[in-house]
Amino acid sequence: MAVRRLHLEQLKGIPVSDLEVEIVERKGKGHPDSLIDGAAEGVSRSLCRYYLDEFGTILHHNVDKGLLVGGRAVARFGGGNVLEPIYMVVAGRATNSVVRNDQRREVPVGDLAVRAIRNFLKSNMRFLDPDTHVIVDQKIKPGSADLVSVFEKSGKIPSANDTSIGVGFAPLTATEKLVLECERLLNSERCKKELPEVAEDVKVMALRVDNKISLTVAASAIAGLTSDRDHYLNVVHEVANRVKDLAARSTDMTVDAAVNSGDDFAKGVYYLTVTGTSAESGDDGNTGRGNRANGLITPMRQYSMEATAGKNPVNHTGKLYNVLAQRAADRVYGEVNGIKEVYIRLLSRIGDPIDHPQIASAGVLLQESRAISSVSSEIESILNEELDNITKLSTMILRDEVTLF
Amino acid sequence: MAVRRLHLEQLKGIPVSDLEVEIVERKGKGHPDSLIDGAAEGVSRSLCRYYLDEFGTILHHNVDKGLLVGGRAVARFGGGNVLEPIYMVVAGRATNSVVRNDQRREVPVGDLAVRAIRNFLKSNMRFLDPDTHVIVDQKIKPGSADLVSVFEKSGKIPSANDTSIGVGFAPLTATEKLVLECERLLNSERCKKELPEVAEDVKVMALRVDNKISLTVAASAIAGLTSDRDHYLNVVHEVANRVKDLAARSTDMTVDAAVNSGDDFAKGVYYLTVTGTSAESGDDGNTGRGNRANGLITPMRQYSMEATAGKNPVNHTGKLYNVLAQRAADRVYGEVNGIKEVYIRLLSRIGDPIDHPQIASAGVLLQESRAISSVSSEIESILNEELDNITKLSTMILRDEVTLF
Amino acid sequence: MAVRRLHLEQLKGIPVSDLEVEIVERKGKGHPDSLIDGAAEGVSRSLCRYYLDEFGTILHHNVDKGLLVGGRAVARFGGGNVLEPIYMVVAGRATNSVVRNDQRREVPVGDLAVRAIRNFLKSNMRFLDPDTHVIVDQKIKPGSADLVSVFEKSGKIPSANDTSIGVGFAPLTATEKLVLECERLLNSERCKKELPEVAEDVKVMALRVDNKISLTVAASAIAGLTSDRDHYLNVVHEVANRVKDLAARSTDMTVDAAVNSGDDFAKGVYYLTVTGTSAESGDDGNTGRGNRANGLITPMRQYSMEATAGKNPVNHTGKLYNVLAQRAADRVYGEVNGIKEVYIRLLSRIGDPIDHPQIASAGVLLQESRAISSVSSEIESILNEELDNITKLSTMILRDEVTLF
Amino acid sequence: MAVRRLHLEQLKGIPVSDLEVEIVERKGKGHPDSLIDGAAEGVSRSLCRYYLDEFGTILHHNVDKGLLVGGRAVARFGGGNVLEPIYMVVAGRATNSVVRNDQRREVPVGDLAVRAIRNFLKSNMRFLDPDTHVIVDQKIKPGSADLVSVFEKSGKIPSANDTSIGVGFAPLTATEKLVLECERLLNSERCKKELPEVAEDVKVMALRVDNKISLTVAASAIAGLTSDRDHYLNVVHEVANRVKDLAARSTDMTVDAAVNSGDDFAKGVYYLTVTGTSAESGDDGNTGRGNRANGLITPMRQYSMEATAGKNPVNHTGKLYNVLAQRAADRVYGEVNGIKEVYIRLLSRIGDPIDHPQIASAGVLLQESRAISSVSSEIESILNEELDNITKLSTMILRDEVTLF
Repeated sequence: MAVRRLHLEQLKGIPVSDLEVEIVERKGKGHPDSLIDGAAEGVSRSLCRYYLDEFGTILHHNVDKGLLVGGRAVARFGGGNVLEPIYMVVAGRATNSVVRNDQRREVPVGDLAVRAIRNFLKSNMRFLDPDTHVIVDQKIKPGSADLVSVFEKSGKIPSANDTSIGVGFAPLTATEKLVLECERLLNSERCKKELPEVAEDVKVMALRVDNKISLTVAASAIAGLTSDRDHYLNVVHEVANRVKDLAARSTDMTVDAAVNSGDDFAKGVYYLTVTGTSAESGDDGNTGRGNRANGLITPMRQYSMEATAGKNPVNHTGKLYNVLAQRAADRVYGEVNGIKEVYIRLLSRIGDPIDHPQIASAGVLLQESRAISSVSSEIESILNEELDNITKLSTMILRDEVTLF
Repeated sequence: MAVRRLHLEQLKGIPVSDLEVEIVERKGKGHPDSLIDGAAEGVSRSLCRYYLDEFGTILHHNVDKGLLVGGRAVARFGGGNVLEPIYMVVAGRATNSVVRNDQRREVPVGDLAVRAIRNFLKSNMRFLDPDTHVIVDQKIKPGSADLVSVFEKSGKIPSANDTSIGVGFAPLTATEKLVLECERLLNSERCKKELPEVAEDVKVMALRVDNKISLTVAASAIAGLTSDRDHYLNVVHEVANRVKDLAARSTDMTVDAAVNSGDDFAKGVYYLTVTGTSAESGDDGNTGRGNRANGLITPMRQYSMEATAGKNPVNHTGKLYNVLAQRAADRVYGEVNGIKEVYIRLLSRIGDPIDHPQIASAGVLLQESRAISSVSSEIESILNEELDNITKLSTMILRDEVTLF
Repeated sequence: MAVRRLHLEQLKGIPVSDLEVEIVERKGKGHPDSLIDGAAEGVSRSLCRYYLDEFGTILHHNVDKGLLVGGRAVARFGGGNVLEPIYMVVAGRATNSVVRNDQRREVPVGDLAVRAIRNFLKSNMRFLDPDTHVIVDQKIKPGSADLVSVFEKSGKIPSANDTSIGVGFAPLTATEKLVLECERLLNSERCKKELPEVAEDVKVMALRVDNKISLTVAASAIAGLTSDRDHYLNVVHEVANRVKDLAARSTDMTVDAAVNSGDDFAKGVYYLTVTGTSAESGDDGNTGRGNRANGLITPMRQYSMEATAGKNPVNHTGKLYNVLAQRAADRVYGEVNGIKEVYIRLLSRIGDPIDHPQIASAGVLLQESRAISSVSSEIESILNEELDNITKLSTMILRDEVTLF
Repeated sequence: MAVRRLHLEQLKGIPVSDLEVEIVERKGKGHPDSLIDGAAEGVSRSLCRYYLDEFGTILHHNVDKGLLVGGRAVARFGGGNVLEPIYMVVAGRATNSVVRNDQRREVPVGDLAVRAIRNFLKSNMRFLDPDTHVIVDQKIKPGSADLVSVFEKSGKIPSANDTSIGVGFAPLTATEKLVLECERLLNSERCKKELPEVAEDVKVMALRVDNKISLTVAASAIAGLTSDRDHYLNVVHEVANRVKDLAARSTDMTVDAAVNSGDDFAKGVYYLTVTGTSAESGDDGNTGRGNRANGLITPMRQYSMEATAGKNPVNHTGKLYNVLAQRAADRVYGEVNGIKEVYIRLLSRIGDPIDHPQIASAGVLLQESRAISSVSSEIESILNEELDNITKLSTMILRDEVTLF
């Protein structure tokens, strides 16, 4: 087997946590972009499971493009209506016809896709009814596979489908952790129980200047659970409190939280939704426009534009390399002494085995005392191990052991 | 007026050009993601022009989400066919009803949208026929405006539509310049004249390790202009030569260029297209998934995830702040002495005037001899000027004086 | 009020029952054309109920055009799968915005439409799951109403929306009755209990030559309930028996019944469906292409091409006049002595009050002994009564007291 | 070969021309239902031609279901705009993959369909621009064919695809002729030259009572060619004059013509269109809802509900039998002495050869002096000849020698 092209480089300068300014964002699970990410990924996983059950292997598919067209709704205290449903479509292609022993078998791609999107919505949104609030469509083109040739290749390392980039980094800064935890808190089971008015469509934006974090939280309130203006103000107040409590536990920095800054009480503008997502009234979404594989949008960092959602977990390096880079970064930071910050950058070449990227490069910012030579073999080992085990990622992804967005 | 929150910070470390590893990508104008970016932006501009002509001001719209569903085609040397058309849809909302002096006027939003997408395709693709190769659709929801209230606000600085991030940097590294120029070369008028076989769907990926750049160029050949295998090989060869010539003029580094690495001659796999875009045979696209506002994808840089295409150029900070940040970065690098690298980061707050971001932050890497104090007032002036003039950006965008992707 | 233009004419010749040849058809409730008829009508009724509940009057709508695009499915003994869902769309326009006392209220047209189509499917099809076997879409354009002007008109007789034709006749011939009863038998609750294998997609075609009726019955078997070839043959056999029993009770004529003539056992072709409708595997449907308002297609009769499904029951004469003509024909035949056959023909004029058609014409075939003068006043009374009561039809339609297809 | 089941029956009574009341309708070529009929038929013919050119035989297809969703437009004297384009979709299935000598060839079904619909619109509508006024879509499912088995069958008579009815009659009454000629006049080249304001969307409805015909003509005026109210009134006046002139040449009966009765000058309601079809502002259409194969809708006649448009001309008896029945009726009336009126009724059985219907029945109304025996052999000959030559119909249809709607 060809030698792997690993690379290690010492970065200089200031870790992001020590920069004076930091901007971090996370779109919550009910955000239109997150919904269409979830839909695309749901379709991919459903296909994977079907292929595995029926054919023992994951067949070719790619459903990483999608569109959510916002509906029209009227939300008012105590209730409201969806006037026009949201429209969601996942596009791509998938093997829908398999020849084994001269027999052709059909894969119910369209049925699986529609079912997967609906199931995703049902599992993630309490008040968005996929039966009537959403028109679920799919535009997945057919493909065919010959199982003999598929199995001839099995055991072999898959070839990269494209020339794609994966990036991961560690550790998260305090600001990044706070943003991540903040959204997770507001969408936690506990919060949904104690403060059910808080919708799934939460967006958290943090601006840190020196040691002061300003959180801008947009957290829609479920109209049907929010009886009036006072009730709404209580919810907003309670969200702010919980966010501040979290911040107090999470960091020593000063944190202020502005919740629903778009409200304009004088004009009667409150952030209410009937279904829990702003998609109900005209906010649209595209796959791949939301959170990166670590759950965040970090414009002041190295990161990858690749969408992970909807790509197949077998040979789509736009997905695998982002997951792998993140895992490797976490391990390097966790296992190797003397690392302040690490970035892992991977680049595939179309047609090459996925465990042999064009480059697997680690950029590390070391603690003052350390020399790059003292960490190189450990980092190399980690990169090698992760690349050696790259084919296991698909199982982990299917088992939900990996964050994708 | 409130004081602006400007911020200046000295970065430390190594400029990207001096890092050992660099990865840079550009999707050419015929790439599926670029096509749907162009479609969305075309719709926005067409709406802007109509609103200006009819009402003297740009009315609210946002069409920054789109989907391109790839078609099916058979390309073969000397010709080929599109079997199933590409499907393109731009979604969003736009003011389609305007009340002035108690009279309602209707805006032909759907008509303008379809026309704009078709015109965009006609102006940018030589062999993609919008009449038969593409089904052009739009899902733009209606909105209404009362001109009186619009004009009351005119003169005022518009309020940010959302809490969004803009990032720009300067200068480009040699690698970045090369990637940009490489795609532009292959899609230049001259190249299309001398080597018309080269399709618009070009993708350039660069990996620099130390002072060696490996370019991976995917440049489809137009099937109808490419008579046979030998012809194709000549085209590929000629592309490689031109790229290398460009590289030789552009940089002292060693540059190798792999063109169409996905080809597999043994299996008869060549990168041919009938229409000039891989969208013809199943490659899908989403708005906002392609190049950033500087025309590049630079995972090793600070940059913004925001799509610029399709957003309105009046108060959508996801568009304006990326353009402004890039302009400010260029100016800082060009006008201020002693700057090695500069990053401009802007963050809006929903509802605030767009010339008063939450923060406008410059991070600069200085030449060894310089102190931050020596550049601060100049940088501050540039930021202030650009923010003072932010409302002029919409005109510049409409006049095509600004790159968006 | 203007005088009504009533007309009575004595027809000569042979009643259809005494012609030597007669051809009659009925598409069962699971036929693709019936499904999309039912969907359109379901949407209209749902809108009517909403308008009545919210505004006390039925507002303008028309949703009488629809398309069902067949899916793809594999049905095999004992089971099968839908591979690609059916796509159903109902088009038209409906009032979605109502101004009352200067307040605008929105009507959830899209939501009501999707819900209505799904409910229609759920109530009528046992094995077609609207959640996963069908993509339910709507393309209903908005309209607005000013309640003041609506109520000013209330009490007044509505004006005809178009120049349309309604036709009804009585009595049904023995062949017509048999066709109607045959489909109803196979789709009766009792039959679904005793012979659940019989799908909802039944089509009955009768050819009578002299006193011999040849029935061609296409009755799909539910794949999941039909374990094998023998089972299938039993079902087909049992369907034939039940149809013959019905025929024996219903008529003295000789009746033979060919069930599923399209089967080709040698080639393994059986009429199986997973969901109970041939729409699952590519049979498409259009609104208004199925049964007429009496439940039949009778090419040897006078009848109307107008679709009743989806038209509004207030002023759409294409719906009202067909219902009224059928009711009047039934009454004339039932109440007036000496009538062998009666045809009622109505023609509206756009803009005229619906109780004042251009003409309301009765053509009657009299028993030998009778003179037209002896029936004219009775028939005239019936026509006048029915026209006087035309505005009650909408209530009857909403209460399901009237067959529409 | 099996004996054909021919049938001849003497009808009694009054020919339609002598009935006291007659109602006849024709939808002009720009009517929404006609447009979607034309689109479906255009797709079928385009497929036929392609199949013939490439494979020497017409392969399986059926595209007889379609939907036109009306757009939104503002028409005003002197101009106007389409605000939202019309949406047209043709659905069905077509062979898109052909195996010959172990080689698979693809058929560009989607491309042909879109092109055909656009060409149909271009050839038939002067002011409807398929580029911007219409979104042309197709939902045609794939099918495959093995040319060997296709050719094995060639020479053989095709088998009926379904159990379908065809009906034709002759002669046309004076009223029917007038309706047909009236629409043709208004859509004639000459009229378009002399009175270009008259749109293609013409609808003619005739009510004859005794010897007085009332024509209701809806003829939209092209807004861009109609400068003002006076101009419009002139056009309407001129249309009425031409219709009356035609009537005077065509019949001795009294004819009055009401043109655009829906107008309401007091409220400023005129029948103007920008594009020449009411589809521009919300009138929808479905395939098969317009004129029958003789170009008319004749509710007081025997006729067939089957759509001819879009069915394949090889074995779809819903198309072939309607064409054949009309031709046979014309010949019987033209060639056989003593016929007052003739109806031809054909019924296929799925799977049987198309030249052997379940029944081919002629019902004739004879002149007083004639006996049925005196015409039976001639009529039988005509039916036999037409059935013997049924396979030639597809060529005639492709050569446009046959009216279909």
